[in-house]
Amino acid sequence: MRRLNERLEQQVRFTMELDKLKLVLRRNTLGDSSRFENSAEHSWHLAVMAAILVEYANGPIDLGRVIQMVLVHDIVEIDAGDTFAYDEVGILDQAARESLAADRLFALLPPDQTILIRGLWEEFEARDTEDARFAVALDRFQPLLQNIAAAGGSWRAHAVSLEMVRARCVAIGEGSAALGAYVETLIADAVSRGMIAVPGIAAP
Amino acid sequence: MRRLNERLEQQVRFTMELDKLKLVLRRNTLGDSSRFENSAEHSWHLAVMAAILVEYANGPIDLGRVIQMVLVHDIVEIDAGDTFAYDEVGILDQAARESLAADRLFALLPPDQTILIRGLWEEFEARDTEDARFAVALDRFQPLLQNIAAAGGSWRAHAVSLEMVRARCVAIGEGSAALGAYVETLIADAVSRGMIAVPGIAAP
Repeated sequence: MRRLNERLEQQVRFTMELDKLKLVLRRNTLGDSSRFENSAEHSWHLAVMAAILVEYANGPIDLGRVIQMVLVHDIVEIDAGDTFAYDEVGILDQAARESLAADRLFALLPPDQTILIRGLWEEFEARDTEDARFAVALDRFQPLLQNIAAAGGSWRAHAVSLEMVRARCVAIGEGSAALGAYVETLIADAVSRGMIAVPGIAAP
Repeated sequence: MRRLNERLEQQVRFTMELDKLKLVLRRNTLGDSSRFENSAEHSWHLAVMAAILVEYANGPIDLGRVIQMVLVHDIVEIDAGDTFAYDEVGILDQAARESLAADRLFALLPPDQTILIRGLWEEFEARDTEDARFAVALDRFQPLLQNIAAAGGSWRAHAVSLEMVRARCVAIGEGSAALGAYVETLIADAVSRGMIAVPGIAAP
């Protein structure tokens, strides 16, 4: 093949590497419980949600940046794999594994784009901007909706407690007080339907 | 469940409906040929590509709009299904099926967002803006990369000819002359490796 343009070829190589995120499975299923969700389609779901739910962000945000942030927030999982939110062991070295993954994957891009995309990923992880807090809120809200659609989904499969779900959902209110309040009603409903384990209350 | 906010509940219902796009299978596979690609992860792939390849658009484009356009361009497939690009029968009523799907799906949203999202979808379909032409170019470029990664993929599985591939790829140059020229070299390479059928030339 004639070599056209080293920059374009780097970008195409990165593009083709992205395909592998479709093979990274998360712990939650699709709403119909037919199979596990993968991190690429999860990222798509967050990006559309950002456009639809932008009015609920706590502060002024840049929707375009938030969408790009959720689109790239899981790319490191191509190398590092998905770490289950309630996996107390996996979480210990998650940051180190993901940092190594970022080194390799984002370096496939031309240097200016390495900086841009890695910056978005680091901002998401650091959660110290309104854009990042809203992006993280969506990343917590979406699997909650998936679990509700799947009648308990990964909560039931892994006996996740109400306390653990609540702790995980604090970040929703930090990015969107309105979604945080709404999620409280969804959690109460999920508990009443036996989707989330509460000590002392037998599942129906 | 306490009824909080009719608007938010409409938005959440739409969000949960989106999950079904992950069940719509396309004709091309993932690069490793392990399974067919679905339309949700395909849409994610296009959105990241838009951010990475924006510099190659023919005209000045609004990246945020292009990304939103590719994110929503296949939502109608939840009801209408994916129509294979080379399916000469399916294409006959594709527009009618997709218009009905748009009527139902986008109406799940509050009216202002129905207009916004349907507008983006119609703009993509009409291809009469630079934003839409670049979005369509990506939608043609990505499956070509998938087929190359899969050593011919849906081209081989459906005996798609060079003429058909070339006709399908005209839209790439209409959105991006640079990507259109690059794709010519990729196609020539794919032909030389027997991935695309050329009359009179036996596959190796």
